[in-house]
Amino acid sequence: MKKAIVLVSGGMDSCVTSAFANCDDYDLAFLHLNYGQRTEKRELKAFTDIADYYEVQERLVVDINYLNEIGGSCLTDNTIPVPNADLDNSKIPISYVPFRNANILAIATSWAEVINANAIYIGAVEEDSSGYPDCRRTFYDAFEKTIEKGTKPETQIKIITPIIDLSKKEIIVKANELNAPLHLTWSCYEMEDTPCGQCDSCALRARGFEQAGIQDPILL
Amino acid sequence: MKKAIVLVSGGMDSCVTSAFANCDDYDLAFLHLNYGQRTEKRELKAFTDIADYYEVQERLVVDINYLNEIGGSCLTDNTIPVPNADLDNSKIPISYVPFRNANILAIATSWAEVINANAIYIGAVEEDSSGYPDCRRTFYDAFEKTIEKGTKPETQIKIITPIIDLSKKEIIVKANELNAPLHLTWSCYEMEDTPCGQCDSCALRARGFEQAGIQDPILL
Repeated sequence: MKKAIVLVSGGMDSCVTSAFANCDDYDLAFLHLNYGQRTEKRELKAFTDIADYYEVQERLVVDINYLNEIGGSCLTDNTIPVPNADLDNSKIPISYVPFRNANILAIATSWAEVINANAIYIGAVEEDSSGYPDCRRTFYDAFEKTIEKGTKPETQIKIITPIIDLSKKEIIVKANELNAPLHLTWSCYEMEDTPCGQCDSCALRARGFEQAGIQDPILL
Repeated sequence: MKKAIVLVSGGMDSCVTSAFANCDDYDLAFLHLNYGQRTEKRELKAFTDIADYYEVQERLVVDINYLNEIGGSCLTDNTIPVPNADLDNSKIPISYVPFRNANILAIATSWAEVINANAIYIGAVEEDSSGYPDCRRTFYDAFEKTIEKGTKPETQIKIITPIIDLSKKEIIVKANELNAPLHLTWSCYEMEDTPCGQCDSCALRARGFEQAGIQDPILL
């Protein structure tokens, strides 16, 4: 059976991405990254809950706290405050963690080469994201070429971004179609018990549910 | 002043690469990776000694022990024995750590974007290496494109591989020309006190010094 690694942060995007990989008949392996983000523990719980939901056997949780040491983002440097939501995506927000997704994909590729996975699913969203440069299709295309050049000749690994062109609204509608367990997800950048409702991620989530005409299950 | 990150493992290649970056008039920042390799402590000492030699202020040491957990190489999985030297480079040896250099470059790029470095020096060697796929120029070219696509528009980071076309012999000759402190380096994959003389890395080093007609200073 063909195998895919799914990058699962514990948010809605990675949850729906897992549902896509599951529908594509891949044997799933889940990878989660802790990088010193404020809500690390809550995200890990969401990862575990989603992995249990899909009965995933192969799981890898990697600490990349060096991103915390490197800093440069309000998500990894506690001295930089999390700003209130600003959904103008003409500029790159301070929540951008420099080149984070390349770090994550490099780890996923190393693991994929060892466990013989031939796909990496990542829930990046280009259009409706916060303007992060490492969420664009051109970045993933470039990374896939890097994998081709930097791994063994027999290694074949595709990067699959099933929701890259979807809006948050469409992601939520698709999640319902695919029975993705959105009730197990966590999005807030700031709090671990109740979503703050103020950060970029909360604002994007709220707007998505509102536009989809669906009640957010974690607020029920 | 322009700034460069140099990847310094503590071996000869990274030592000479530091000398090149120093000659190119960059302000140097040194990055070292621990990834659960057998000779981690000895390599870190070599890193520190070379950084002191070049009076480098900005230093970052990152643990990427997840490569140990991922395994797949005799360098990161202690259950896989280090084979005796086999300098036939028509096949990829078991010392290949899957996609290791992409992991390293991703970290270097994240750090470079935060500290405003515009170059990353890496001492990869294509011709005289052990056939690792992530030591080839095509891989670095692909990675540089990935950096361009995955970082902020104003970020400009070149990957510089000054010794990629050199043989070990030529590296040693160049080291002497540039006063690179080879006496501070460490190459052995197996031992931390005296080089084993048997592993691939010891064999490549010995052959290089022999061909250069120079005595290895760490054996004096």
